[in-house]
Amino acid sequence: MARQITLKEVAARAGVSYQTVSKVLNKQVQVSKETEARIHAAVQELGYRPNLIARNMRQQRSRLIGYSWQPASPDQGNAILDSFLQSMAQAAEGAGYHVLCFPHHSGSEIIAGYRDLIETNRVDGFVISSVEFDDPRIDFLRRQKFPFVAFGRSNPEWNFPCVDVDGADGMRQVVEHLLSQGHLRIAALAWPEESRVGQNRMSGYLAALEKAGVTPLPEWIRRGQGTLDFGQTAAEELLELPAAQRPTALVAFNDIMAIGAMSAVEARGLQVGVDVAVTGFDDNPMAQYLRPSLTSVRQPVWEIGQQVISLLVGALEDPLRESICSLLSPQLIVRQSSGQPI
Amino acid sequence: MARQITLKEVAARAGVSYQTVSKVLNKQVQVSKETEARIHAAVQELGYRPNLIARNMRQQRSRLIGYSWQPASPDQGNAILDSFLQSMAQAAEGAGYHVLCFPHHSGSEIIAGYRDLIETNRVDGFVISSVEFDDPRIDFLRRQKFPFVAFGRSNPEWNFPCVDVDGADGMRQVVEHLLSQGHLRIAALAWPEESRVGQNRMSGYLAALEKAGVTPLPEWIRRGQGTLDFGQTAAEELLELPAAQRPTALVAFNDIMAIGAMSAVEARGLQVGVDVAVTGFDDNPMAQYLRPSLTSVRQPVWEIGQQVISLLVGALEDPLRESICSLLSPQLIVRQSSGQPI
Repeated sequence: MARQITLKEVAARAGVSYQTVSKVLNKQVQVSKETEARIHAAVQELGYRPNLIARNMRQQRSRLIGYSWQPASPDQGNAILDSFLQSMAQAAEGAGYHVLCFPHHSGSEIIAGYRDLIETNRVDGFVISSVEFDDPRIDFLRRQKFPFVAFGRSNPEWNFPCVDVDGADGMRQVVEHLLSQGHLRIAALAWPEESRVGQNRMSGYLAALEKAGVTPLPEWIRRGQGTLDFGQTAAEELLELPAAQRPTALVAFNDIMAIGAMSAVEARGLQVGVDVAVTGFDDNPMAQYLRPSLTSVRQPVWEIGQQVISLLVGALEDPLRESICSLLSPQLIVRQSSGQPI
Repeated sequence: MARQITLKEVAARAGVSYQTVSKVLNKQVQVSKETEARIHAAVQELGYRPNLIARNMRQQRSRLIGYSWQPASPDQGNAILDSFLQSMAQAAEGAGYHVLCFPHHSGSEIIAGYRDLIETNRVDGFVISSVEFDDPRIDFLRRQKFPFVAFGRSNPEWNFPCVDVDGADGMRQVVEHLLSQGHLRIAALAWPEESRVGQNRMSGYLAALEKAGVTPLPEWIRRGQGTLDFGQTAAEELLELPAAQRPTALVAFNDIMAIGAMSAVEARGLQVGVDVAVTGFDDNPMAQYLRPSLTSVRQPVWEIGQQVISLLVGALEDPLRESICSLLSPQLIVRQSSGQPI
């Protein structure tokens, strides 16, 4: 290894004090652009490497935030991953942290990656997403008393910091939009009952209908695994109901089920957006390019990434801070599939 | 801080030797599932934390690989990010590394994130993607003599390890498929001349036509920024050529231009896949759901992630190892837009 360059040598080369160099490199002080440039030039020219690893050891901190996520199925893609990671990485950098990505392990192995990173002192905290009820990761991290923030809520009796999208509010916006277009028979292509996100969205669907004095028929609520095939089959069955019960609008809990439903509508010789309205959820980038383009609900992904990191950094810096859960509203994007002129 | 638990205490609790615990935790030895479980249980119960930070300091290594990428435009999404990151994270974990994600800075700031991570000893190496000619990141990392591997080639005179997709081969597959369907007038919706990936794909287009004895008219090659609007406008212009010059197939250099071209074909009352073939590139998850579904070219993303990490770990462990560039072939996916029955 080359001889270690000292901070003093950098200071001498930059023509500033040792303290100034130290504070600028540790981002503890603002100096003029010109001084900062001079210091960075000196660091470059001399090849100075502050011993961050040694500093982290003294502080017993890695300044890394662990994040792992469930891979998307190849046919659906992960519409929000890019923006979510960019947002987290930017917010983390601003607070002196970085995001460490580790692979997803499924089933009973899901905890292994978290346990390894904790046991090896590799990260200071975690961000978790795709949170479910009785989530084993939350159960584990709570028992370990290890800092984390979740994108998504879980069991109400568990107290932990989280950021979540108000899916009920998103579904309320969808249903109120359809009601305003004159639809009264509005069916739901939903997720299985045990799905936490599904329950949240369902509650908004039911509440908006109830508020409008509409009682949904049990037949209008179809539950399945969120696939294209399920969306298509469920829509076919709904369109075969007797005329007086047949829905005029199909509200899908994700975009891929909506695409299946659109195929089913067209297969019956009906026109999506004219004869039958179809809406999705998540606003996949593909939604705008479908013909007709798909009405959907967009999550405030950038804001979620910022808040998740802000809550986690807060918890790391003040472990006694009370857990906050932040609830963000999504945004309805109306397109041709639900009444925007084609 | 709590008292530091020692490896000896873990060994006593697990009923094995100190050496066994050390080797198992450092993954230097295979023991029975049962012994491994007992050691992990002891680690858990005692709350043992091996001082990885201290070990890394002794070795002067962070065991982190930095990765930053250009955010996708929200209307296109990043079809390969999920799989690419999962693959890299998995390969890195297998080699005792993790992936550190840091935010993308654009323009003249693009180097800042790399410089900071090097200056603070934060990472051992980088993976870079979306590589262009005269890429400032490659220029910088080469001058720093800092280990990196690129997903993508750059200037031929620069010697560095890389993994790339053979875009020329992908385009050759597209053109040969269209020729086999009887098309002879095959136009290209291409990128600007300075685009490295664009040049690569263009060379495959031209070579496949030449091999078939077809000389493309200059009018058939349209260059633009890879947007939906450009694809649409370029296709409109191509379809207005005199009948004898008018292309019967439009080969787009990405999926989004192909979607624009499909709109232009339909706007003229022609049927995509019947009157005019349209193909894309990248196989965005949306491609299969378009109507008609879009023929495209799929990159072997998982394999790229594995190879990128393997090359980088090799370079980290043997700095004198020769730089290898690995070229992988993409896969043509034929769908309705180019002749699969609708």
